[in-house]
Amino acid sequence: MSFNMVDFIEKKRDGGAHSKEELQALVAKTVSGELPDYQLSAWLMAVYFNGLGDDETMHFTEALADSGERYAFPKDMRVVDKHSTGGVGDKTTLILLPLAAACGAVVSKLSGPGLGYTGGTVDKFESIPGMKMHLASDEFIAQARRIGCAVSGHSKELAPAEGKFYKLRDVTGTVPSIPLITSSIVSKKLAGGAAGYVFDVKCGSGAFMKDAKAAEALARNLVKVSKKLGKKAVAVLSDMEQPLGEWVGNAAEIYEAVEVLSGRGPSDTRELCVTLCGFMLALAEAAESPADGKEKAERALSDGSALAKFAQIVEAQGGNAEVARRPLEILSRAQKKYSLKETKGGFISRLDALAVGEALRSLGGGRLKLDDEIDRAAAIRLNKKIGSAVAAGESVIDLFYDDEEKLKEALRCLEGSWNVSGKAEKRRLIIGAIE
Amino acid sequence: MSFNMVDFIEKKRDGGAHSKEELQALVAKTVSGELPDYQLSAWLMAVYFNGLGDDETMHFTEALADSGERYAFPKDMRVVDKHSTGGVGDKTTLILLPLAAACGAVVSKLSGPGLGYTGGTVDKFESIPGMKMHLASDEFIAQARRIGCAVSGHSKELAPAEGKFYKLRDVTGTVPSIPLITSSIVSKKLAGGAAGYVFDVKCGSGAFMKDAKAAEALARNLVKVSKKLGKKAVAVLSDMEQPLGEWVGNAAEIYEAVEVLSGRGPSDTRELCVTLCGFMLALAEAAESPADGKEKAERALSDGSALAKFAQIVEAQGGNAEVARRPLEILSRAQKKYSLKETKGGFISRLDALAVGEALRSLGGGRLKLDDEIDRAAAIRLNKKIGSAVAAGESVIDLFYDDEEKLKEALRCLEGSWNVSGKAEKRRLIIGAIE
Repeated sequence: MSFNMVDFIEKKRDGGAHSKEELQALVAKTVSGELPDYQLSAWLMAVYFNGLGDDETMHFTEALADSGERYAFPKDMRVVDKHSTGGVGDKTTLILLPLAAACGAVVSKLSGPGLGYTGGTVDKFESIPGMKMHLASDEFIAQARRIGCAVSGHSKELAPAEGKFYKLRDVTGTVPSIPLITSSIVSKKLAGGAAGYVFDVKCGSGAFMKDAKAAEALARNLVKVSKKLGKKAVAVLSDMEQPLGEWVGNAAEIYEAVEVLSGRGPSDTRELCVTLCGFMLALAEAAESPADGKEKAERALSDGSALAKFAQIVEAQGGNAEVARRPLEILSRAQKKYSLKETKGGFISRLDALAVGEALRSLGGGRLKLDDEIDRAAAIRLNKKIGSAVAAGESVIDLFYDDEEKLKEALRCLEGSWNVSGKAEKRRLIIGAIE
Repeated sequence: MSFNMVDFIEKKRDGGAHSKEELQALVAKTVSGELPDYQLSAWLMAVYFNGLGDDETMHFTEALADSGERYAFPKDMRVVDKHSTGGVGDKTTLILLPLAAACGAVVSKLSGPGLGYTGGTVDKFESIPGMKMHLASDEFIAQARRIGCAVSGHSKELAPAEGKFYKLRDVTGTVPSIPLITSSIVSKKLAGGAAGYVFDVKCGSGAFMKDAKAAEALARNLVKVSKKLGKKAVAVLSDMEQPLGEWVGNAAEIYEAVEVLSGRGPSDTRELCVTLCGFMLALAEAAESPADGKEKAERALSDGSALAKFAQIVEAQGGNAEVARRPLEILSRAQKKYSLKETKGGFISRLDALAVGEALRSLGGGRLKLDDEIDRAAAIRLNKKIGSAVAAGESVIDLFYDDEEKLKEALRCLEGSWNVSGKAEKRRLIIGAIE
């Protein structure tokens, strides 16, 4: 077909709908480098204003997925995948992979590069000495078949067109568009080859989506477009006003994951993981319902099978599996500790996830640019959460650091990061699920 | 000031208003090449959707004008300038310059390069042998002082940032934005140094603005922003459903201009010119009112003073001034003639300006790209206009051409270009004026 980019931009500008063929041509010409960035960014801004319909989003998503390698699993494997929109202290992936695999699902997880307050899943797993996080596709698929789970950083070959659009959106003010976010997320899931997806959509100060309405709209769109593409899909909306769990940091989140997988750990991290796992098992037909799946997940946490699966995955990918038994010895943690203490006392009524995330990044635990070095040993511990009682003089936040200058920066981030009042309720973690 | 382009784009995307300093920084960084085109085009599309307020348009316009050389005239000269939004057969500039100068105004006219159905004012004047259309700024100003009028193609030094934005708008679907069109036009007027502007805003199939409402909105905005910038300004809205006058083509429009300046020529061209001239004289304080100015203009057409001024300008710029007395001998016209005849007869009820414009371009008389060669001898004559009676077998349109292949293309453009009905009124040419 003949494709004129100016006509294409004007169509979206004027509220028209693109055909499948047009969107395929757009993506093909983006990959081949025929379309200049200034035309792509004008189109992206027109999409920001006029949106994409469901069919357009589906076709755009499919074209993005088709721009590179697509993983394929045998149909009877019923592979499931999960995606989190990201947040502070979000270690659910580290727990969910072995947990769901221990309960009989096959879990395939390809992670993108981490840009944010902590590193990404790849960085966190790489805190385990020896752990190989870049598996070739045949290795990856073989491991998933053999032990029910594989996790790897994805190569640039996975939906490469998506990477190009994402980079452009990031510098042109066109990130917060629900259809563009949807196609960005789902295209990589689609290329990853799973048959069902669980989306962990977070909402609040530490999340990508700050606003509850927008988060819900994204969750609905993710599920709708995935289903249109013939996939099973569920989205769980969860709170990210405060960080998830007790620890924030790369090695520190592996530590907390091992705690939860051992049947201990903070109750919020545990609750979110068993809930998400319940949905994953239902999608994988390894449970009769999400509730049944959740029960199975709780059993796997108490009977040691989830922890054993974790050790098996670490071993399969070359890591030191002793981390499952002696995490504090295997994982590094910065030596110096600074405690931020409450002066008045009362109940914690606010604990700002964004401030904690920025503090961890200031300590060196996160990245602003993709080639920034990351410090996996830097960590922040939250001794109190919203609703906790705190006495005057008690530590609310502990920082583990190596460099005094970085500590100063981190402390600046944490100024006014919590409030105390006479009474405060715990926050509801799980806001709802969209099936 | 610190300027972050992503924040700047997001501000407009979210409906915010830019400060003067921000817009100055935008333009400065565009000129210096610091801002990538993909960010500029995202901003342009956000402006398409959310517009620019009056103050923003004024500040953007001023920053564009300040990006290059600005002409300056002594205050007591009361220099006036005119701008046409362009149309098919639009030879008003050729007539207005000598006409207003003959009536005592000082007229300064810097013309941009012509992209369109015919060439621009520069191309048309260059049909006169010897005519120099690229005057240095000191030469230009000296001539305006000496004989009351100078006309020149403007250099790239005039509002160079505007050129950069325009090029980008043209390929990103962001041309039809009233504030962007306004700032594009007024920035060049501002750099040209006149104290008053008359805008000839055309509306209809052969115009840049097809739609009457949009044309009126543009006219109002041009006047408002010019006045905010401390300039006198008037806009005249005129019809461009059918071409203006009798002739379309480069040399041919010089011919028609000489006809009108000699007190002859088609009544529509004459009417528009004396009306526009009336406003110019009023702005220049060379007439007491637009009506008084119009009368003066009519006198100058009949007493030979306008034609004499035309000859003086041509001579001053090195052209063969005999063109004023013997235009048919001096100007070239293609040798072969083809007549398109009416079959049924009746009254012309439609005569499509766009089709005529495209036909002239097909004959070689216009440009699609700036480096296209132009054929100044190609011409189209309209023997009938809307409201004219036409008998079966009578010629409606004559084409003057050299190349049979080009003729074929032109005839394809003219298929169905006019309608005939039992009765048809003349169209009203002047729709209104905005002061």
